[in-house]
Amino acid sequence: MRLSRYFMPTLREAPSDAQIVSHQLMLRAGMIRQEAAGIYAWLPLGLKVLKKIEQIVREEMDRAGAVELLMPTLQLADLWRESGRYDDYGEEMLRIKDRHDRDLLYGPTAEEVITDIFRAYVKSYKDLPKNLYNIQWKFRDERRPRFGVMRGREFLMKDAYSFDIDEAAARRAYNRMFLAYLNIYSRLGLQAIPVRADTGPIGGDLSHEFIILAETGESEVFAHRDLVEMGAPGPDIDWDGDLEPLVQQRTRLYAASDEMHDAARFEAEGPRTNA
Amino acid sequence: MRLSRYFMPTLREAPSDAQIVSHQLMLRAGMIRQEAAGIYAWLPLGLKVLKKIEQIVREEMDRAGAVELLMPTLQLADLWRESGRYDDYGEEMLRIKDRHDRDLLYGPTAEEVITDIFRAYVKSYKDLPKNLYNIQWKFRDERRPRFGVMRGREFLMKDAYSFDIDEAAARRAYNRMFLAYLNIYSRLGLQAIPVRADTGPIGGDLSHEFIILAETGESEVFAHRDLVEMGAPGPDIDWDGDLEPLVQQRTRLYAASDEMHDAARFEAEGPRTNA
Repeated sequence: MRLSRYFMPTLREAPSDAQIVSHQLMLRAGMIRQEAAGIYAWLPLGLKVLKKIEQIVREEMDRAGAVELLMPTLQLADLWRESGRYDDYGEEMLRIKDRHDRDLLYGPTAEEVITDIFRAYVKSYKDLPKNLYNIQWKFRDERRPRFGVMRGREFLMKDAYSFDIDEAAARRAYNRMFLAYLNIYSRLGLQAIPVRADTGPIGGDLSHEFIILAETGESEVFAHRDLVEMGAPGPDIDWDGDLEPLVQQRTRLYAASDEMHDAARFEAEGPRTNA
Repeated sequence: MRLSRYFMPTLREAPSDAQIVSHQLMLRAGMIRQEAAGIYAWLPLGLKVLKKIEQIVREEMDRAGAVELLMPTLQLADLWRESGRYDDYGEEMLRIKDRHDRDLLYGPTAEEVITDIFRAYVKSYKDLPKNLYNIQWKFRDERRPRFGVMRGREFLMKDAYSFDIDEAAARRAYNRMFLAYLNIYSRLGLQAIPVRADTGPIGGDLSHEFIILAETGESEVFAHRDLVEMGAPGPDIDWDGDLEPLVQQRTRLYAASDEMHDAARFEAEGPRTNA
């Protein structure tokens, strides 16, 4: 490729509405361009980076035993009516009518679709466990998109869904994903802190967020220093073995963001990082 | 990957609404699943094939000097109002309103977006030529989706857009794409016949369709036998040189589908294939 044919439109100055440095630099380096609020085109250089990240995520999902498929961006509203989440989801869901006046939506997540696929084919407990993931564009109609691609409306999401025979097996699947996420962040050069999280509208009773400490963050995070400094488990662990010790080593240390913070416990439990 | 963890749900019998053999076999092999009319999930095996095709297309586009970027699936209606195509496009365009009542649409094609990107950055004729492409999901609300993924509504499309300094340069860009398409089909194991085509709602005055002869096709095709049997040019041609002879060699031979067929010329011009 001749450089003269390449397309990397750098800017001398970032547009004034770019508040955080990552957004400013991505614009100035010609990586992204805003097409509408929270909707971006990935220019050639940005796309190269996006694809590298996507490939790291894919490799670590595969290593942890998940299987890739691809669900469409548009979904039938009827599936969400069946699950009872259609009316609950609120204004973040982009609702669409097609030419035959059928209700569609741009998937903000895909529990309904993957469960419909699963029930169509899987007829025996012998087919379990299954962990199915996809890397696909999602849309969430954020009231206030901001920080460039950090908080966009149309965004590329990796979402994995596991199906297991009982709670213990589900916990094993969870552990695999928990450790795979740490390895992904590590390969991206980021130190991620697993923080117990509210499950939100997705539901369920076990959830972690993986938080990167940054000046521009919007949450306060309280965490034990040993957890902040702990490395990722690495790829060479026994993915089919007992991962509980590796997970416990991390989850028994205090970590919470402000909405789930317990100040008394935090004070009692030793060396800490407060960012 | 253990086979027991993989997900390849084969079917003994194809659903009765699958009319053509490719659709039947893709369903039976567990490659795709219909989620709504003309909207498919790509199951693991199908996704592997889709990604291999995507990669062949990418490599041949790159070889021919095109540069990949990625435009979003959703576009602003205002861009289409500016070009005058918003009202023209008709019911195939999926029109959407977001939470702030702003008009969006699911891109059926991307001339407006790429032109907006181009005009934002390219300020000098010295930056030409540029050929920018993307491989992204599109949506066209076909009245009657059919034949599985052959005529879907949500589909993965490679679309390339060239910007040139004059008509001769535009013709050179066209020639590169023309030959790249033949190489793509050849690598896919398909014999494609380039057929002069109506430009349709996209506009312009030069257009070819690349047609694969198939029993299940919906057009009649009339072509000189030498063209049907002619091989692809191969990757090792001089992409920066004069490609006109290679293109002429193919376009001077008669080829038309029924809507542009000229029976008298066809009869006059020698050995033919009528499929």
